[in-house]
Amino acid sequence: MKFDSRALRYSEDGLFVLDQQLLPFDEKWIEVTSVAHMIDVIQTLKVRGAPLIGVAAALALADEWKKQNYAPEVFLEAAEKMREARPTAINLMNAVDRVKKAAERGPEAVMREAEQIFREDVELCEKMSQRTSELITDGDGILTHCNTGGLATAGRGTALGGISLAWEKKKAIHVFVDETRPLLQGGRLTVWELSALGIPHTLICDNMSGCVMAQGKVQKVIVGTDRIALNGDLANKVGTYSLAVLCKHHGIPFYVVAPSTTVDRKCTSGERIPIEERQPSEVRGAEGSFGKIQWASPKTDVYNPAFDVTPVDLVTGMVIDGDYFSQDELKAGKLKTVFPS
Amino acid sequence: MKFDSRALRYSEDGLFVLDQQLLPFDEKWIEVTSVAHMIDVIQTLKVRGAPLIGVAAALALADEWKKQNYAPEVFLEAAEKMREARPTAINLMNAVDRVKKAAERGPEAVMREAEQIFREDVELCEKMSQRTSELITDGDGILTHCNTGGLATAGRGTALGGISLAWEKKKAIHVFVDETRPLLQGGRLTVWELSALGIPHTLICDNMSGCVMAQGKVQKVIVGTDRIALNGDLANKVGTYSLAVLCKHHGIPFYVVAPSTTVDRKCTSGERIPIEERQPSEVRGAEGSFGKIQWASPKTDVYNPAFDVTPVDLVTGMVIDGDYFSQDELKAGKLKTVFPS
Repeated sequence: MKFDSRALRYSEDGLFVLDQQLLPFDEKWIEVTSVAHMIDVIQTLKVRGAPLIGVAAALALADEWKKQNYAPEVFLEAAEKMREARPTAINLMNAVDRVKKAAERGPEAVMREAEQIFREDVELCEKMSQRTSELITDGDGILTHCNTGGLATAGRGTALGGISLAWEKKKAIHVFVDETRPLLQGGRLTVWELSALGIPHTLICDNMSGCVMAQGKVQKVIVGTDRIALNGDLANKVGTYSLAVLCKHHGIPFYVVAPSTTVDRKCTSGERIPIEERQPSEVRGAEGSFGKIQWASPKTDVYNPAFDVTPVDLVTGMVIDGDYFSQDELKAGKLKTVFPS
Repeated sequence: MKFDSRALRYSEDGLFVLDQQLLPFDEKWIEVTSVAHMIDVIQTLKVRGAPLIGVAAALALADEWKKQNYAPEVFLEAAEKMREARPTAINLMNAVDRVKKAAERGPEAVMREAEQIFREDVELCEKMSQRTSELITDGDGILTHCNTGGLATAGRGTALGGISLAWEKKKAIHVFVDETRPLLQGGRLTVWELSALGIPHTLICDNMSGCVMAQGKVQKVIVGTDRIALNGDLANKVGTYSLAVLCKHHGIPFYVVAPSTTVDRKCTSGERIPIEERQPSEVRGAEGSFGKIQWASPKTDVYNPAFDVTPVDLVTGMVIDGDYFSQDELKAGKLKTVFPS
């Protein structure tokens, strides 16, 4: 078996991930040799994107068990540690739970399950992108936040997958990319992907989105998500909530695109989604392969939530796998019916 | 005569400005020796803040004429160049027009006028701050954008002046500071001033303001402005408009504080305010005395407006000098009556 995506490769040569912290200037692949190593690359955001994290976690668990052939209890312990690598993305937990279940049938079943998770993600990306591209009209200005393309998934991407497919279908679009402070996934990664795909785009600071909306340059906002509650609330990269409010004010549709693995079947509302807080130093400056600078004193008090919660009231509709859920359907509790716990 | 403010000093020793690009880590004063030199320090944002720019421009013009004693035509030419140093701040134009008028009476009259502009700005800061502090309630969380304190004016400041006076009056407040990309005036300067004043504060990225509002941490947003149109629309640092929309959504009062020199008596509405666009490199990275980094490719297309326009519909009220103008009064055209052209 051989798997190959924009940011993850797996074959008999080993498990490799593209170090996304080094983008856009360096493209360096890291061989991930253990579960502990994968936890580290996930926590340091070298591997990122909720769907890709799930795929990478499952493959790392399967790969280590295959090589070390330890007792099932050891595997389950490793799986528990992996499950807690990052607290907000539900895909990680879903993927780990799936390989844990397969573990009852031994290491080979775990590998098959991990490979299946990879394949499913690729297929889901195609379905999501297909449905999302139908929402996009020729001539649209589309604003997006963070990175939701081939770097964030095993396939084409979620929100950005739909945008790139619309472009392939010859729809003339222009993408406005929020830089997405503090970690700059928009400025570093989305711009890099759009440039590689030849899609016209403009980079802006996060605080300029309202301004470009007021100028009539944005017809749609399309974002991904890290966790969807059953009532239609969702958690996504911090700044998403502000965008949704701005959309409401300007009458601009606000769409969310995600695989069904993002739905938390146990979470009844957005208030119950735990929000990861990250290091204050991220907000006091900027850091990456491009360098490290700090413009605020290290004593400065900082609030640094990685995500925020957008209530369903601000969501025009969601694409989940190949299906579209309107706000009315979300509010009527359709997610609970389609994704029973 | 001797003038001394947080970022500008003038005495027989010369005209000195604090290099605000070097803050918060270095406090270096630059002796400004000519009008051309002052234009340069204004354009490179070493001197910034709409009111301070006006004061600094007038003093530089007066100082050069005093020293070089050239013909009035030469002075008027220098004044024209100075007037165009930055296009959005109306205070600069007002200050230059005042010294140009005084020029009919010679260099000494120009110096007296420049000194008068300095003194007036200090007095106006006190008036604005007094009125603004009355809007602030004990226990308030206050969010502000950019820098509007002693670094931006000859006196205590505009929005931040009111906030600091409320603190001096023993009101328990907590200030949320937007970092204010791309030039980070919040993260570099406002945090530095609040820290020097001992006022509790938390630095956030611009895209987190919606999130902290949703959490109920913000009771007021108070900002400055670079230009007020007669219909109550205003231009301020980019990101202000998004804040105003977020305030409306959350039912949070949105206040604007400025000296009357900020009112453009010839500008009937915000659509007519010219918006300065700055270098794309500012958005592709970050740069300052703290270092220089670029995280996006130099080929990346960028939109970098320095300001955006907030319509009067989103303004709860304005403090201009010592007076408060409610939205209703602004909409009824009170600015036109109080500040006839």
